[in-house]
Amino acid sequence: MSSEIMLPAGFRAAGICCGIKPSGRPDLALFASDTAAVAAGVFTTNRVCGAPVTISRSRVPSRTARAIIINSGNSNAATGTPGLADARAMTAETAALLGCDEHDVLVCSTGVIGVPLPMARLRQGIPAAADALGASSVHLQQAATAMMTTDTFHKTASREIRNSAGIVRVSGAAKGAAMIAPNMATMLGVILTDACLTPEEADLMLRRGVDRSFNCVSVDGHMSTSDTVLLLANGASGVTLNEAENARLAEAIREVCEELATSIIRDAEGADHFITVDVAGFETRQQAERIAREICESALVKTAVTGADPNWGRIVSAAGYAGVDFEPEHLSLRINGTEVYRSGTPAEFDAADLSRRMRDNRDVHFELTLAGGPCSGSQSARFWTSDLTAEYVRLNSEYTT
Amino acid sequence: MSSEIMLPAGFRAAGICCGIKPSGRPDLALFASDTAAVAAGVFTTNRVCGAPVTISRSRVPSRTARAIIINSGNSNAATGTPGLADARAMTAETAALLGCDEHDVLVCSTGVIGVPLPMARLRQGIPAAADALGASSVHLQQAATAMMTTDTFHKTASREIRNSAGIVRVSGAAKGAAMIAPNMATMLGVILTDACLTPEEADLMLRRGVDRSFNCVSVDGHMSTSDTVLLLANGASGVTLNEAENARLAEAIREVCEELATSIIRDAEGADHFITVDVAGFETRQQAERIAREICESALVKTAVTGADPNWGRIVSAAGYAGVDFEPEHLSLRINGTEVYRSGTPAEFDAADLSRRMRDNRDVHFELTLAGGPCSGSQSARFWTSDLTAEYVRLNSEYTT
Repeated sequence: MSSEIMLPAGFRAAGICCGIKPSGRPDLALFASDTAAVAAGVFTTNRVCGAPVTISRSRVPSRTARAIIINSGNSNAATGTPGLADARAMTAETAALLGCDEHDVLVCSTGVIGVPLPMARLRQGIPAAADALGASSVHLQQAATAMMTTDTFHKTASREIRNSAGIVRVSGAAKGAAMIAPNMATMLGVILTDACLTPEEADLMLRRGVDRSFNCVSVDGHMSTSDTVLLLANGASGVTLNEAENARLAEAIREVCEELATSIIRDAEGADHFITVDVAGFETRQQAERIAREICESALVKTAVTGADPNWGRIVSAAGYAGVDFEPEHLSLRINGTEVYRSGTPAEFDAADLSRRMRDNRDVHFELTLAGGPCSGSQSARFWTSDLTAEYVRLNSEYTT
Repeated sequence: MSSEIMLPAGFRAAGICCGIKPSGRPDLALFASDTAAVAAGVFTTNRVCGAPVTISRSRVPSRTARAIIINSGNSNAATGTPGLADARAMTAETAALLGCDEHDVLVCSTGVIGVPLPMARLRQGIPAAADALGASSVHLQQAATAMMTTDTFHKTASREIRNSAGIVRVSGAAKGAAMIAPNMATMLGVILTDACLTPEEADLMLRRGVDRSFNCVSVDGHMSTSDTVLLLANGASGVTLNEAENARLAEAIREVCEELATSIIRDAEGADHFITVDVAGFETRQQAERIAREICESALVKTAVTGADPNWGRIVSAAGYAGVDFEPEHLSLRINGTEVYRSGTPAEFDAADLSRRMRDNRDVHFELTLAGGPCSGSQSARFWTSDLTAEYVRLNSEYTT
């Protein structure tokens, strides 16, 4: 299905093997705009961040971006001053081939940390990637594949907005947040659109989109040193959007982010279940988010789902320690549609039947609702996570250093 | 060794089977002071708390406490108004037997949640526990055993302070924080001393002790609805302490709390390794604590230790997302004495040798130090945790509801 996903107008992509990964799998992706594009970025807030984050962060927002160069297999993190020089060199090599300034190229790296980038291979690989650039859906797929580390499938998504003047397209690619040998991996996302945006609009639309998607997923609560989502908007559609259509564009960007972010959770290491957590009835969205996040990050909640156990006590108690005021007697919980906890006390339900449905269905849905009391309100949040399996432990405890 | 641990003067204890646990194991503990004692308590901050927490919290600090009644096998949490009546009834039954007011009895429960207490069994069991009260080390051990849920050994600790007038003793018992079928368990601690304290002194010494012990351990970051540590001080030693000796008493209370808290970690479900995390060189203790806690709660750090992997990247990156300002170039890390990360870059070390030492030694020690830069200072924090094994997942994912 995702092989049908098209690039927006005026973009080309490539994914090739340049020999960074010992496996010989694709490890170098290039996204390029034929003309100067507006660029925005959202980056990890980790104090310990990779060199590419430092470089790319300093280059957005921008009006003149032309490309994003991404390698997998080596994160160029904890590599000191030489790492910064290597990240800069990757952008300079790319810029020379595309005929632009190195400041118009953004860079991401993901993979092993604390190891210098194999620059000789990259210096051979970057021209090969530039040669391989193409505008077809296969090129986008190859670029998405070259971003992967432990992902088991490539992740792309797309939306269109049509009006009488034509089509505006938003397409994206991402790789997973799960972490594994030989060290940590990273969540990377690239969003491309042929809409015409100001740097301020691009920045705002990307931040809002990421805030309701990539910031609402958690595999293990461990924030990587390299998490990055970049947006390029090149205006090549030639379509002018009115205010309502611009709002639809913002929503399309959010939807592409959400589809990519939830794909990452569906591909989480060792996961058997995909868990959607809806928290509703609080005074502020922040309160609902804090509770949803605690539920998503509780090892006890996640192992209960692994065991198909409708263990409402773990879910409700995780809500209780999120640092949000509420009266438990107004709290209720549904699991896959079945009420298991009503107004602060256990509800009667067929536990064996619900467990069977949790076991037979890969998707699990929690709906936690506050109704009544001085702390209740109309705000809600949706988060996504995966369960925690023995396979996750096995994958992450194998000797790697 | 812990069977040698004596009760302080004027205290008696008992642990019996009253039939709450299907296994028939001991499930009712009673700690009693022969005379009115000062009482203090520290309780879970979970918004969803058990009925015994509500009752005990309302009764401390106090000058007239006489006893603590504790059942395991049922937490009396999420049981609504009837649960509050049951918790009160447990204290009233105990008070009637000891000849005191029900407000002078504190209560704790741990075990399955959302199930009414079997009060008929407790009404038979409480008199049996009162009959079994005794002042020997065996009685303390039996009481500690009756508090256990999934603990594999009972946990007691003791310290003495001697001066010319005699001996002041601090003894304690605790049960584990690990959580398991049929629902969540709880961390409970009881600290008894024959020192003479005001309620204000008792409250302060207990809070300080808990703050540097029970609040510095994490198995899975999931705060229970019933966590409680209680202190009774009955003055029965008859010994007056001077200011320096009173400071030693405070330290003795902290040491007993630390020994009990670390015993809980050593007994964590499925754990292969005991991990001590020292964070030093920050401006405030709170900053050091936040970093230590993030490291202790990272599933990736814990699984790396499971695999005897000196994976410094996971540890340093967990420090990076703790929300504390620092410059990575001033950060260094030792694992079991070996420097693996120096001033923001990887240090050269024999990874195979360090891994072998991590595999052969149950104790793992991280020392993360900030030295230099505008964010550094003289404050430190020590936390303790366990590794995360496939056995933990197995224990917590078995069908339980």
